[in-house]
Amino acid sequence: MNRKMIAYLLGRVFLAEFVLMIPSLLIGFGYGEREAFSFVIPMVILLIAGLIFGLKKPQNTVIYAREGFFLVAAAWIFMALIGALPFCICGHFESVWDCIFEIVSGFTTTGATVLKNPGALPKCILFWRSFSHWVGGMGVLVFVLAIMPMSDSLHIMRAEVPGPVVGKLVPKIRQTAIILYAVYAVMTVVLIILLCIGKMPLFDSICHAFGTAGTGGFSVRTEGIAYYNSAYIDIVISIFMLLFGINFNLFYLILIKKAKEAFKSEELRWYITIVAVATLTIAVNILNQYENIATALRYAFFQVASIITTTGYGTADFVLWPAFSQSILVVLMIIGACAGSTGGGLKVSRLILLFKTFAQEMKHLLHPRAVTTVRLENAAVNNSIVINTLVYFSLYIFITIISTLIISLDGFDFTTNITAEIACFNNIGPGLGMVGPTGNFSAYSPLSKMVLTFNMLLGRLEIFPIIVFFSPGSWKKNAR
Amino acid sequence: MNRKMIAYLLGRVFLAEFVLMIPSLLIGFGYGEREAFSFVIPMVILLIAGLIFGLKKPQNTVIYAREGFFLVAAAWIFMALIGALPFCICGHFESVWDCIFEIVSGFTTTGATVLKNPGALPKCILFWRSFSHWVGGMGVLVFVLAIMPMSDSLHIMRAEVPGPVVGKLVPKIRQTAIILYAVYAVMTVVLIILLCIGKMPLFDSICHAFGTAGTGGFSVRTEGIAYYNSAYIDIVISIFMLLFGINFNLFYLILIKKAKEAFKSEELRWYITIVAVATLTIAVNILNQYENIATALRYAFFQVASIITTTGYGTADFVLWPAFSQSILVVLMIIGACAGSTGGGLKVSRLILLFKTFAQEMKHLLHPRAVTTVRLENAAVNNSIVINTLVYFSLYIFITIISTLIISLDGFDFTTNITAEIACFNNIGPGLGMVGPTGNFSAYSPLSKMVLTFNMLLGRLEIFPIIVFFSPGSWKKNAR
Repeated sequence: MNRKMIAYLLGRVFLAEFVLMIPSLLIGFGYGEREAFSFVIPMVILLIAGLIFGLKKPQNTVIYAREGFFLVAAAWIFMALIGALPFCICGHFESVWDCIFEIVSGFTTTGATVLKNPGALPKCILFWRSFSHWVGGMGVLVFVLAIMPMSDSLHIMRAEVPGPVVGKLVPKIRQTAIILYAVYAVMTVVLIILLCIGKMPLFDSICHAFGTAGTGGFSVRTEGIAYYNSAYIDIVISIFMLLFGINFNLFYLILIKKAKEAFKSEELRWYITIVAVATLTIAVNILNQYENIATALRYAFFQVASIITTTGYGTADFVLWPAFSQSILVVLMIIGACAGSTGGGLKVSRLILLFKTFAQEMKHLLHPRAVTTVRLENAAVNNSIVINTLVYFSLYIFITIISTLIISLDGFDFTTNITAEIACFNNIGPGLGMVGPTGNFSAYSPLSKMVLTFNMLLGRLEIFPIIVFFSPGSWKKNAR
Repeated sequence: MNRKMIAYLLGRVFLAEFVLMIPSLLIGFGYGEREAFSFVIPMVILLIAGLIFGLKKPQNTVIYAREGFFLVAAAWIFMALIGALPFCICGHFESVWDCIFEIVSGFTTTGATVLKNPGALPKCILFWRSFSHWVGGMGVLVFVLAIMPMSDSLHIMRAEVPGPVVGKLVPKIRQTAIILYAVYAVMTVVLIILLCIGKMPLFDSICHAFGTAGTGGFSVRTEGIAYYNSAYIDIVISIFMLLFGINFNLFYLILIKKAKEAFKSEELRWYITIVAVATLTIAVNILNQYENIATALRYAFFQVASIITTTGYGTADFVLWPAFSQSILVVLMIIGACAGSTGGGLKVSRLILLFKTFAQEMKHLLHPRAVTTVRLENAAVNNSIVINTLVYFSLYIFITIISTLIISLDGFDFTTNITAEIACFNNIGPGLGMVGPTGNFSAYSPLSKMVLTFNMLLGRLEIFPIIVFFSPGSWKKNAR
């Protein structure tokens, strides 16, 4: 492990978080909120830590996959721990676990909240809460497009998706990051403008655009997006949630005028198909709860887009929908968005790969002598990636089962527990039952909140980096 | 495909089922029940079909894995379709779907029922219902110990478990089957005697012994085993459920006086550990619902044994237990019994293999250059078996999700739907919610019943044979 380089890069992360806290501080002072002072102590800590570690670049700047994973996990964990301080200091949260839950929910773009009435928070705290989604979304893009490809067997997109993907972190990451951030920022600004046109107040528009871009889901209103009750706003947000759930490499392709190639993406086609089928099915299923098919379609489309992209905004209390629609939403929770987007979940490309592996195993069973390979996006998929995808999915289910078991200690009903776990692990936000779109996670015990918080990190960083971070070997002096 | 040999063997299966119906017929006449006549038509059909196909042995008797799978699936499906006829004719069932559900539940040793008041059925019908568990259990033993090993990549036990395992069906199957059936029959008789000693009526003892041996779960009492309210009976049945959940190869080892080797079995040790930990945890968790720790332990032990072996008998309404205990039971439902037993579920050895594969992938991630192999029962596991286990588990989860989605069309709550699916797919019987130990499956629509019935077959035959059966290629004249 190149410890010096990791420390240096973490120092840069601290400095970045210092800068990222400035807008919240200014907004607090601008609105004359005393909670603005909550940002002072964490900012001092970040500045000092940043200056200690992040000023002197070490001579050896080469880092490999394992360091990359360690760094990513460390960055998320430390950013969250320090980022929780404003919540702790402001006095609007019930416990330190709640603060950590809320900010991890922010940085992992989950959007699950422990707040019963978020609409009552001061603006500077609301801004920091929503801004953490936007920052988390940026972090995820760099993680999945620059750091994950460093490991041969982990990355399902490497072989098949062209675009600004780099093999080693240091040389090209700056260029990659700049392109991605530009796309991300421009789309966010466009969304803010469109929301303002729809008569959403500027502050709300900015915060909701952050939540949409990061596929997070924190709202500045207790009622969520339902507060505005505007078909225009619903449709704009639906479309942008879906856009932010697409592999960002495809936007890059469109930028370099290869739009045709982008639309040939197998993952994109599946993604669109799943959204269309789910929307129509739910619309038909909920039809008798709404005045006409257009309204049913509007609510179905919004919720499908919100859940598959793992954003978690709500315009309808889908806990009141028929069981079939609820089950479809749970399936969408697990599927998740496209790989290389800000969305969470299993990812559409993993799903395609799993199905193709099943088909191949069947073929092998029926024709033992036939030689078959799994192909994705017109390229053969390396066998180690197939095995890794199978292991990932199996681990994913195990983590879901064990975590549900632990949180069931609190005694809530089975539906609440399993969907709370799925909603956190897949970085969605709301589940069913008590944690439905009008509920929240406040009733859970500190132990359950810790388990769910850990799940958000596991889900966001796709399990393996967190394991690297917590494996004792990574902390030994001469680890390699 | 060696069609002539498959037809011949199916003919033998029909003749066997003819013979197996005789006891039910005699019991019906013995008790002077008019329902005894329900067995006449199916017996005539079986005799004719058996004589047409099962008399003349073809010249070419060699069959391979694919034929073996096809045969097993066909045997279960045809036995069930004809075995459902007495139910249809007797007039105690509401629809033909109910009859098929009930008999498939019997032959697959599931024990899920559509009957609201099974205690009210005539004795001959009750006997046939329970006897189908015993027959299904015998069938499973031959399937997992003689037919599955024919496929190289499917069988997780082949490499590691010694005993009467054969590579090709015809030469040694008779010998294998005789040993297994002897063990199975002797254990059943011992159980009947022990239950009679506990003052359970002879008829009830026989039927409950059938349900225990096949890890089925149909009771002749509407209240289940709780009816007798006897600690002795509870403990005897608990122990025998656990015994029938052990790999039968281990009994063979004990028979040939290699008991030491049997107790070294890794799967057995895990199985005992899981049962012990689950029993103690649940006993502590339910303590305040019972008068003392002994009673809590008695009920916890019974339910853990009943669920992990996928039997499904009930002495307590565990739907009233705390959420944590219910979640543990759901986890046990998925784990299931040992491979090579009459129990269903994922199987303990698959679980061990999955965990070891995870550990290996982690090692590989942290030390990319290290060479590692997964070992089970002190032998290296073939890579194709590891991949097959991963595919099996992934397919298993997909089937669970998709089936839950379909049955949720009926509009029942999420907990009922997902546990109904898990209980049928893993051949357990009761789930949670509406399908808990005091509930039944009668409220589901015909579509849901068909889906659940299909799941029982998929789970019992470990997915792949059913796929072979329904793949169009298997039905072509020159398939190979």
